[in-house]
Amino acid sequence: MIFPFTAIVGQEEMKIGLIVNVIDPSIGGLLIMGEKGTAKSTAVRSLAELLPELTVVKGCPFNCDPDGILCTDCKETLKTEEHLHRAKKKMRMVELPLGITEDRLIGTLDIEHALKKGEKRFESGILADANRNFLYVDEVNLLEDHIVDLLLDSAAMGINSVEREGVSFTHPAKFILVGTMNPEEGDLRPQLIDRFGLCVQVASIADKEMRMEILRRKALFDAVPENFIMSWLDEQKILAEKIIDAQSAINNIAVPDTVLEKIVTVTAPLNLDGHRADIVIMKASRALAAFRGQDSITAENIREAARLALPHRMKRLPFETTDSEKEKLASLLQEIMP
Amino acid sequence: MIFPFTAIVGQEEMKIGLIVNVIDPSIGGLLIMGEKGTAKSTAVRSLAELLPELTVVKGCPFNCDPDGILCTDCKETLKTEEHLHRAKKKMRMVELPLGITEDRLIGTLDIEHALKKGEKRFESGILADANRNFLYVDEVNLLEDHIVDLLLDSAAMGINSVEREGVSFTHPAKFILVGTMNPEEGDLRPQLIDRFGLCVQVASIADKEMRMEILRRKALFDAVPENFIMSWLDEQKILAEKIIDAQSAINNIAVPDTVLEKIVTVTAPLNLDGHRADIVIMKASRALAAFRGQDSITAENIREAARLALPHRMKRLPFETTDSEKEKLASLLQEIMP
Amino acid sequence: MIFPFTAIVGQEEMKIGLIVNVIDPSIGGLLIMGEKGTAKSTAVRSLAELLPELTVVKGCPFNCDPDGILCTDCKETLKTEEHLHRAKKKMRMVELPLGITEDRLIGTLDIEHALKKGEKRFESGILADANRNFLYVDEVNLLEDHIVDLLLDSAAMGINSVEREGVSFTHPAKFILVGTMNPEEGDLRPQLIDRFGLCVQVASIADKEMRMEILRRKALFDAVPENFIMSWLDEQKILAEKIIDAQSAINNIAVPDTVLEKIVTVTAPLNLDGHRADIVIMKASRALAAFRGQDSITAENIREAARLALPHRMKRLPFETTDSEKEKLASLLQEIMP
Amino acid sequence: MIFPFTAIVGQEEMKIGLIVNVIDPSIGGLLIMGEKGTAKSTAVRSLAELLPELTVVKGCPFNCDPDGILCTDCKETLKTEEHLHRAKKKMRMVELPLGITEDRLIGTLDIEHALKKGEKRFESGILADANRNFLYVDEVNLLEDHIVDLLLDSAAMGINSVEREGVSFTHPAKFILVGTMNPEEGDLRPQLIDRFGLCVQVASIADKEMRMEILRRKALFDAVPENFIMSWLDEQKILAEKIIDAQSAINNIAVPDTVLEKIVTVTAPLNLDGHRADIVIMKASRALAAFRGQDSITAENIREAARLALPHRMKRLPFETTDSEKEKLASLLQEIMP
Amino acid sequence: MIFPFTAIVGQEEMKIGLIVNVIDPSIGGLLIMGEKGTAKSTAVRSLAELLPELTVVKGCPFNCDPDGILCTDCKETLKTEEHLHRAKKKMRMVELPLGITEDRLIGTLDIEHALKKGEKRFESGILADANRNFLYVDEVNLLEDHIVDLLLDSAAMGINSVEREGVSFTHPAKFILVGTMNPEEGDLRPQLIDRFGLCVQVASIADKEMRMEILRRKALFDAVPENFIMSWLDEQKILAEKIIDAQSAINNIAVPDTVLEKIVTVTAPLNLDGHRADIVIMKASRALAAFRGQDSITAENIREAARLALPHRMKRLPFETTDSEKEKLASLLQEIMP
Amino acid sequence: MIFPFTAIVGQEEMKIGLIVNVIDPSIGGLLIMGEKGTAKSTAVRSLAELLPELTVVKGCPFNCDPDGILCTDCKETLKTEEHLHRAKKKMRMVELPLGITEDRLIGTLDIEHALKKGEKRFESGILADANRNFLYVDEVNLLEDHIVDLLLDSAAMGINSVEREGVSFTHPAKFILVGTMNPEEGDLRPQLIDRFGLCVQVASIADKEMRMEILRRKALFDAVPENFIMSWLDEQKILAEKIIDAQSAINNIAVPDTVLEKIVTVTAPLNLDGHRADIVIMKASRALAAFRGQDSITAENIREAARLALPHRMKRLPFETTDSEKEKLASLLQEIMP
Repeated sequence: MIFPFTAIVGQEEMKIGLIVNVIDPSIGGLLIMGEKGTAKSTAVRSLAELLPELTVVKGCPFNCDPDGILCTDCKETLKTEEHLHRAKKKMRMVELPLGITEDRLIGTLDIEHALKKGEKRFESGILADANRNFLYVDEVNLLEDHIVDLLLDSAAMGINSVEREGVSFTHPAKFILVGTMNPEEGDLRPQLIDRFGLCVQVASIADKEMRMEILRRKALFDAVPENFIMSWLDEQKILAEKIIDAQSAINNIAVPDTVLEKIVTVTAPLNLDGHRADIVIMKASRALAAFRGQDSITAENIREAARLALPHRMKRLPFETTDSEKEKLASLLQEIMP
Repeated sequence: MIFPFTAIVGQEEMKIGLIVNVIDPSIGGLLIMGEKGTAKSTAVRSLAELLPELTVVKGCPFNCDPDGILCTDCKETLKTEEHLHRAKKKMRMVELPLGITEDRLIGTLDIEHALKKGEKRFESGILADANRNFLYVDEVNLLEDHIVDLLLDSAAMGINSVEREGVSFTHPAKFILVGTMNPEEGDLRPQLIDRFGLCVQVASIADKEMRMEILRRKALFDAVPENFIMSWLDEQKILAEKIIDAQSAINNIAVPDTVLEKIVTVTAPLNLDGHRADIVIMKASRALAAFRGQDSITAENIREAARLALPHRMKRLPFETTDSEKEKLASLLQEIMP
Repeated sequence: MIFPFTAIVGQEEMKIGLIVNVIDPSIGGLLIMGEKGTAKSTAVRSLAELLPELTVVKGCPFNCDPDGILCTDCKETLKTEEHLHRAKKKMRMVELPLGITEDRLIGTLDIEHALKKGEKRFESGILADANRNFLYVDEVNLLEDHIVDLLLDSAAMGINSVEREGVSFTHPAKFILVGTMNPEEGDLRPQLIDRFGLCVQVASIADKEMRMEILRRKALFDAVPENFIMSWLDEQKILAEKIIDAQSAINNIAVPDTVLEKIVTVTAPLNLDGHRADIVIMKASRALAAFRGQDSITAENIREAARLALPHRMKRLPFETTDSEKEKLASLLQEIMP
Repeated sequence: MIFPFTAIVGQEEMKIGLIVNVIDPSIGGLLIMGEKGTAKSTAVRSLAELLPELTVVKGCPFNCDPDGILCTDCKETLKTEEHLHRAKKKMRMVELPLGITEDRLIGTLDIEHALKKGEKRFESGILADANRNFLYVDEVNLLEDHIVDLLLDSAAMGINSVEREGVSFTHPAKFILVGTMNPEEGDLRPQLIDRFGLCVQVASIADKEMRMEILRRKALFDAVPENFIMSWLDEQKILAEKIIDAQSAINNIAVPDTVLEKIVTVTAPLNLDGHRADIVIMKASRALAAFRGQDSITAENIREAARLALPHRMKRLPFETTDSEKEKLASLLQEIMP
Repeated sequence: MIFPFTAIVGQEEMKIGLIVNVIDPSIGGLLIMGEKGTAKSTAVRSLAELLPELTVVKGCPFNCDPDGILCTDCKETLKTEEHLHRAKKKMRMVELPLGITEDRLIGTLDIEHALKKGEKRFESGILADANRNFLYVDEVNLLEDHIVDLLLDSAAMGINSVEREGVSFTHPAKFILVGTMNPEEGDLRPQLIDRFGLCVQVASIADKEMRMEILRRKALFDAVPENFIMSWLDEQKILAEKIIDAQSAINNIAVPDTVLEKIVTVTAPLNLDGHRADIVIMKASRALAAFRGQDSITAENIREAARLALPHRMKRLPFETTDSEKEKLASLLQEIMP
Repeated sequence: MIFPFTAIVGQEEMKIGLIVNVIDPSIGGLLIMGEKGTAKSTAVRSLAELLPELTVVKGCPFNCDPDGILCTDCKETLKTEEHLHRAKKKMRMVELPLGITEDRLIGTLDIEHALKKGEKRFESGILADANRNFLYVDEVNLLEDHIVDLLLDSAAMGINSVEREGVSFTHPAKFILVGTMNPEEGDLRPQLIDRFGLCVQVASIADKEMRMEILRRKALFDAVPENFIMSWLDEQKILAEKIIDAQSAINNIAVPDTVLEKIVTVTAPLNLDGHRADIVIMKASRALAAFRGQDSITAENIREAARLALPHRMKRLPFETTDSEKEKLASLLQEIMP
């Protein structure tokens, strides 16, 4: 029984950060920074719960989309059979355990099968489970660097290719990467932090009435979960539909030069490394426009996207941006408003 | 032969901390801080001894409750058989050894079985033993972080799901987590300390008469344990019944807005991370009310619950709360009294 | 050929520390602090030599006492046979190697047997060898903490329970733990030092005549060991009988409130952690009374016991007790004298 | 679908650095220093895409050139068969994972095969995949030294020889090594940095119009990749032909003493270690002359080659060359102009 | 071909230190401190060469003395056969490699044999090879502490007992331990240094004529080793006989109280740990007396023995004994002269 | 195709250092210190190329000399066959990889063979390949100490003896050890540096004309290697003959006392450790005399030998010899000139 996404009190920035990634997964994931005890994993889990079932190749451990890129095995099947059988599967949040090994992450050879049957077979890893799902990495700053590297490479390519002892295996590995990180416990290398598309900061809510509402909902949910979930069903359906509509709408929203100019007007003076920020702002502003039901991108969309895409790229420690830099960003954002 | 729980001299805070967790295990365990040689493990072991036998599925290594959530194997059994056979089993304290591996904690594949029989089988871990029992972790601050993580995740979910090489296994893992920690020997990360529901401090007893009483009881117990246990039988039965009654009473105790307001009045000004403290105080005050035989929650219950739930969340080092903070808490607690 | 215990020159405190542990093993072992080259292991080995043979279950690798708590295998045997066969076995000193693994200490599964015979079998560890013997740990401060933990846990429970891959095995593990430690080479954690019942300090002997006597006896022993041992046979027999008598006498020596009061009068003002010191003094003073042939405990016995039980619990570094603390202890001990 | 090499905006120095290595692979690879998010791996991948297919021995895992040096297996084949079968294979970028082991890099024995078939067989490693391809090492400064050593040795020899337990295997391992490195994250040992033939520095582009062009092309490519690629086809073909022509032209371009004198006039006063810089400048200036369609080497070619070959050899930290050193280089380069 | 012991130029203290250990191996070995390139291992190897062949049990890997303590296997043989077959074996220097494991040092189970034959068998270690030989440990200070511990324990007991997975094996392990150590490269723990019976310091020879003699002998030896060895044969035989005579003579040399008094007169004021120094001086002075052909111990023998036995026990760093301490020792040694 | 030794420009000291080691391999190898990119490994490889083929036992993996010391297997063969079959083999440079294990260096048991065939067999290591060849260790200061130890021990003994699980194997391991080392990257322990016979320093060449000559020869060699090699054939033959002649001549060159006196006159005042330097100078001066075609050793030979043998033994860091020490050496060398 999972607490409904729409019943989560507050934390609007985190929620919109997750939603735009669902609308356009090429945005590149979300890094959530901040305090413990702020329902981070609950939010991800419950957003997955709310989304419609995926259509997958029946029995495929990689959740292959029968109409998309296929894994090595599904391709093999198509050589001898006319079409792939389909099944429905709930989307879910896959968790990456701390201390995970490379083999367990990307998959490896099935040694046991090899020893017994004398044939090499691919043993799928966490990236296989994660395909078309959320991949949640709690305290991503405590992972070893080479694991984060592998993770971000797969996220960037959308493909996981493994070659071990002469056996090659390739499967789609498109997932929405959600990392959390407590900046008091050590940093991610700037190289890595830059590769998360968006970043939000969360904190506990100070407002007394909201705190009471959190307790009230928690008490109701704990008492009879079924009833609580039922009472939020309508809100859940409305949000689900908005997201699904936006997913198909983004392809019809143009990105005219006026929008591009606004984007580089903000980013060019900021001394950022590389061009990833520009691209993410472009994509996130389009996803926001689609989610708001607009048919073109507004300066306000760009501004909202920039707030999600820039802070962690401006300084080593995103929340230590000096005041002058904050002001610079603020005035730059102001500038692009009509 | 175990020393009777009711014969333990003093240490009232530790004893009530354990008892409210037994009444409502969703409170999230107890962290015991302080000196060596203060009967911490004896208290847990003897409280387990005092509680009534559990009803379990006969032969199930996970102590599945035949009327609750079932493990993968028990679910399988129900597909072919009409009902599950029942058995009685004593509740017990499971100890987590220092230096435990992840595989040993959450379970893994039974390699030997796989090699010999050619089929993969789940090998249960400590979390399986711990289901519906106490899980005692001595010097939890000396465990490796990722082990504590796994432990607290399972405690939070009540479920242990393991997937290894294509074999999935799920079993209930509801246990009362009791950790001990000597703050002089290094800390837990705040992330982890926050996830223990309650926290108490223990110290040796200075009162001479009480010290003599401890020796007297120890000498009597060591001489003829059977006789000593017999002489405390009545007290043990009375406490057991109080606990059992409270377990069913909590569902009937309401948590009105007046109570919620008192809780957030205390916590909101305290600069705590997240909302876990609020929830724990709500649950612990209800359990205390039930244990005292009340039918509604009083300000005194909230105050007692807050004293168990707040200190370790107010500062990095719980016992280094500055005086001003202590006073702040004291005056906040005063405020909610009628 | 072992040098006779009674022929060891000097080191009276170490000798009495070992003897009271033999009389009442629940006292909890002896920690010997101090210089190299002071016959520590010789003393333990030769005390084992002097004591009478144990009655054990024939063929049992755990030295089960046929009239005491039995190991899992002996219990199994009793189900099919009328009684257990008995044998005699010399008591001995088992040495714990530095760098020992957990598996080797507590035992583990016999992998080889499992692979070949297809049945799981318990492979006993050092704790099995140690049952009813001395367990000698040279430089206990150089052991890894979790090994010392396991050691002290077993010593405290008198039982070693191992569960590996579904196989449970339990056997008695009552041993007299003797640890040595050179405080110049690093400390034990206070947590661990506290769990040794008694502690003595040894040093080389300055007196010239005693030094010559040591050389004389060493030269005689090295020349013809058989003759030297023969010449000390009477003294050995006398001591052995005194110890055996004391072992049965302790059950008949009462511990009246006057004794308890004297104990807590000493310990309560000392700012000790927990109550272990009180219990150890109670037991050691009774053992001393029995060894001296008394039928009740005197203030002198308590004083002697306190000197063995308190120093290592008063400060982190036992021999760094400040003068004021030593004086405090001295005056407290004075106080209890009649 | 890979973004076309010719559609990459800016980064001319990186592009020419890659191209001259393709024209004369004995130049020894390229080290790319600088910021994240600057399309480094895209550039390499897309240059490989643009180049013509290789002619390889059919089925050979080492991509042996049927007219070049052969691997041990291909040599064996030639003993029994008249000629080697040929196949075409796309050139590609092989990526070296961080944390790679020596065995995985250079290949090792196929243990499984050995155990099952009783014959030793060579299991090829990454160097086998890399033969005649690009080998891309992201963040080469984070690799372990002995791995970088192996890598550079193979790159220098063009051959990989492995001997394990009596089995020798040799295969050609000619690849274009491209390493990236962020100098803020720690250095390569000077020993290693010196062995990269050329070095370029990359940074993000400040020019607004160019930034917009990057976004425009990215949006077009993401929308319908096929169309975008089609629209750049002509430019791709032109570049491919220029490179192929240059590859055969270099053998006909002489290196007269006047050229050599200019080279040593620049390098001799610079206090460089060894003579590798001289050789690299000689080769790179010839490759540049060939790429520009010239039939002899000009002072400008030497100047351009020196700018790619010298900076990382002048100081420990290539970009910390003091101003005086930069001026020295500039005036030296000036000196050789006609 | 080994350079003859008697042809070694200078280094008299090292040579006598080795010889007295051969005469009475219970002295406990020799620690050689000092410079590289001073023929340390040559000296030991050539002394072994010079000594007469050992009588051993034929085929016994432990070199059991048929008239001494036997290994487990030899004892087994004696149960079924009337007597043990004898063989002659050259004494030799066994070298302990740096980085040795515990298993390789003390022996372990023969896993291969167990897997193939289904019976457990003991696989002997370096201590087996060393029995009745020299055990040479170059740079003993670079060994891991627990290996040095094992080494010194075996040296002290003269027995190596191994118990692995239920298999016990015991064999004699009497060897002359020779350790070398360069004090500039780190120390042995005082615990360990104390357990070497004697200690000498070596340095290169300054005298020109002696240096030339070293070169002369080296050149002659390298030219035709057989001739050089032949020319020293007489000196070798004389020394061998002196040592063999001394080995049997020591049992007839008394150690009267006057000798003991002299010994403790030297050692008692020196603030040494324990009594090992006294015992070593007693034994070494007797061995020296025997080697010199005397029939009683002189003050000069004691003085020589004290010089070999005391320096490394007086201070942490043997050669940092302050001048005042050296004077103290000198005047103490003076005192005992008649 | 290997660049001819005689075509290497400059680096005369390194070249003569290699040559004298070939003439008398008992000199003990060469340590080359200094800059990267100075053709160190090319020089060794090409010197091996130039030398005549070795006569070896056909099929022997240890390159046994049929007229020299034989390996265990060759000795076995001689027991059943009349003589050993001979073959010719090119001398070569064996490279020691960084990160090599002890087993791979000295050889070990062939586990696979043991498991399959049930008999133990020796698996040869790098030392086997190196017998009668050059063993090249790049950056010897980055090797682990115990590996360098093993290496130098084998070099000193000329024999490699391995004993594993009851199997002994011995084979000749006479090789010319060449180590390189960049003193900026950390030192060798003085213990180890002392064991290299000779030491030279290399640097890049400043002379412009020589630099141009290097480029010229490199360009010619790279263009058509066969032609370049052909053009140097005569010079190569002349050098090869000089070396072969010198190898047999050294046995006929006497080392009279006048020579010895000159050697110790230089070394005695220098405060060196041990006597290895004296011996090396004696041997190297004889080899130089033979190489120069003289029939007796001159003061100039001694001076040249001393310059190769002394610098790395005079100070921890060979090139940090203070000026006063250099002067001392210079004046000492002057002194011995006639």
